Amino acid sequence: MAGSRNQRSADNRSNVFRYRRRVQFAETDLAGIAHFACFFRYMEEAEHALWRAAGLTIARAGETTGWPRLAASFDFQAPLRFEDEFEVGVRIANVTRRSLRYEFTITKDGAPVGSGTITTALVNKTPGEPMKALDVPVDVIARLRAATGGSS
Amino acid sequence: MAGSRNQRSADNRSNVFRYRRRVQFAETDLAGIAHFACFFRYMEEAEHALWRAAGLTIARAGETTGWPRLAASFDFQAPLRFEDEFEVGVRIANVTRRSLRYEFTITKDGAPVGSGTITTALVNKTPGEPMKALDVPVDVIARLRAATGGSS
Amino acid sequence: MAGSRNQRSADNRSNVFRYRRRVQFAETDLAGIAHFACFFRYMEEAEHALWRAAGLTIARAGETTGWPRLAASFDFQAPLRFEDEFEVGVRIANVTRRSLRYEFTITKDGAPVGSGTITTALVNKTPGEPMKALDVPVDVIARLRAATGGSS
Amino acid sequence: MAGSRNQRSADNRSNVFRYRRRVQFAETDLAGIAHFACFFRYMEEAEHALWRAAGLTIARAGETTGWPRLAASFDFQAPLRFEDEFEVGVRIANVTRRSLRYEFTITKDGAPVGSGTITTALVNKTPGEPMKALDVPVDVIARLRAATGGSS
Repeated sequence: MAGSRNQRSADNRSNVFRYRRRVQFAETDLAGIAHFACFFRYMEEAEHALWRAAGLTIARAGETTGWPRLAASFDFQAPLRFEDEFEVGVRIANVTRRSLRYEFTITKDGAPVGSGTITTALVNKTPGEPMKALDVPVDVIARLRAATGGSS
Repeated sequence: MAGSRNQRSADNRSNVFRYRRRVQFAETDLAGIAHFACFFRYMEEAEHALWRAAGLTIARAGETTGWPRLAASFDFQAPLRFEDEFEVGVRIANVTRRSLRYEFTITKDGAPVGSGTITTALVNKTPGEPMKALDVPVDVIARLRAATGGSS
Repeated sequence: MAGSRNQRSADNRSNVFRYRRRVQFAETDLAGIAHFACFFRYMEEAEHALWRAAGLTIARAGETTGWPRLAASFDFQAPLRFEDEFEVGVRIANVTRRSLRYEFTITKDGAPVGSGTITTALVNKTPGEPMKALDVPVDVIARLRAATGGSS
Repeated sequence: MAGSRNQRSADNRSNVFRYRRRVQFAETDLAGIAHFACFFRYMEEAEHALWRAAGLTIARAGETTGWPRLAASFDFQAPLRFEDEFEVGVRIANVTRRSLRYEFTITKDGAPVGSGTITTALVNKTPGEPMKALDVPVDVIARLRAATGGSS
């Protein structure tokens, strides 16, 4: 039914946290476009902006836990160039006991630039010890979800 | 049959071009490990080393063609730390008329660090014109394959 | 006389263009602080923001001129850490026929982080030809100065 | 006297540690040359290679000391381009009780590319405490000097 589709579409939109950014000179390469590895930094910056919007930080000085990445991917649709302003939309796509997956879409003036994912896990990273996976804290997820405007 | 498996295994190995690298200080982050976006640079460096081994270069000054990325992904298995020496293996995994996909594996002292892919395309990038896809040159593929020791 | 000193102080302040920025995760290193090479990017970002404020861009697609650096330096007084917000002040310190020198100060919550300089020149960079220095355009300097609020 | 000049020249040469490197694609910018901030990474990589040649590392996991930078500068004479091979020469230019200054020269095929300096200090960086300067260890300096072949 059209009504419920619209409803879901509106929900999806409200589940997305938006981060704005401009392409810097040092991020371009000799082909005149933002280097493809920069898009992984753009996704991460949006993730961390979401954490801040949730009143959190993904890294505190002296902490012995961290959120290393399990996987990352990006599909490129259009290039970004020097001084282009773009928007990174991020939403929480999947949460398991031991992992958190974000989905990202990048747009410029509303036109698609590409989309990607980052899957991350919480670990104990005490120096001298191997990294050890910890359960994803439910309160962190709740706060991230609230910051994206989603209800669950 | 064991014999043909070994044969294939040997073939696979000979289809892989190997690039060695060390983690630099600027590539680490506050978690004490190589930042995840660096792995996309590591894959690209191995790609370009393969091109050089094939007597080619992926970018020549003044050229109006380039090889932008269509997709990139990486699955992380273990972290790399400052001054770690590691090896990036790259092979040509798939070629279509308009795309070329590499597969990469990163190892440290023989132990897996992670694996990834880059899919790329040849385009005309004359300034002021939209990028236009070109056919992947068969001679380039032949030379890249020869440089990885592969027969097909 | 105190009055004229205050006057000059006010002038100096009005000659400074201010750019705000936050330290991103990928910019930190294993020592837990923003890597020292990032400060040269921060200075450049402030330079380019000044050009935009002047209605200019330092690089246009397809242009055969550019502004390579003749010299760059930075003196570090205090570290920046992940998510720190800081301000880069930039002013035009010196202009000769063939060079332009900016001075930068970085502060965090009003406290000094460090200061630096970038000296740059306009060149013709037609592919296949050696770079050739060009005169610094007086109208560009006038517009940059106007954008920093200075009168001369 | 020619003899003593040659002698000194030989001494100077033997005081220099040499590090070889190639410009990577991600290090280029839209002007088609290695971005100027990369030169500060190149200097640092040569510094750390010198430490390794001396049987040392500038950073060990879990260590509470570090070598932040007090100052860094570079004078650019010629650009580097994608896949250019270049050499970074580093020597210990000055040591005080609380600082260590390196001088660097970058050459390509023997031709000058530029020269720079990095001044660094040893600090205690225990998390949660302000950085505190420590005396530069004389044995570290002796080993670095030995690794550059110099006698003092």
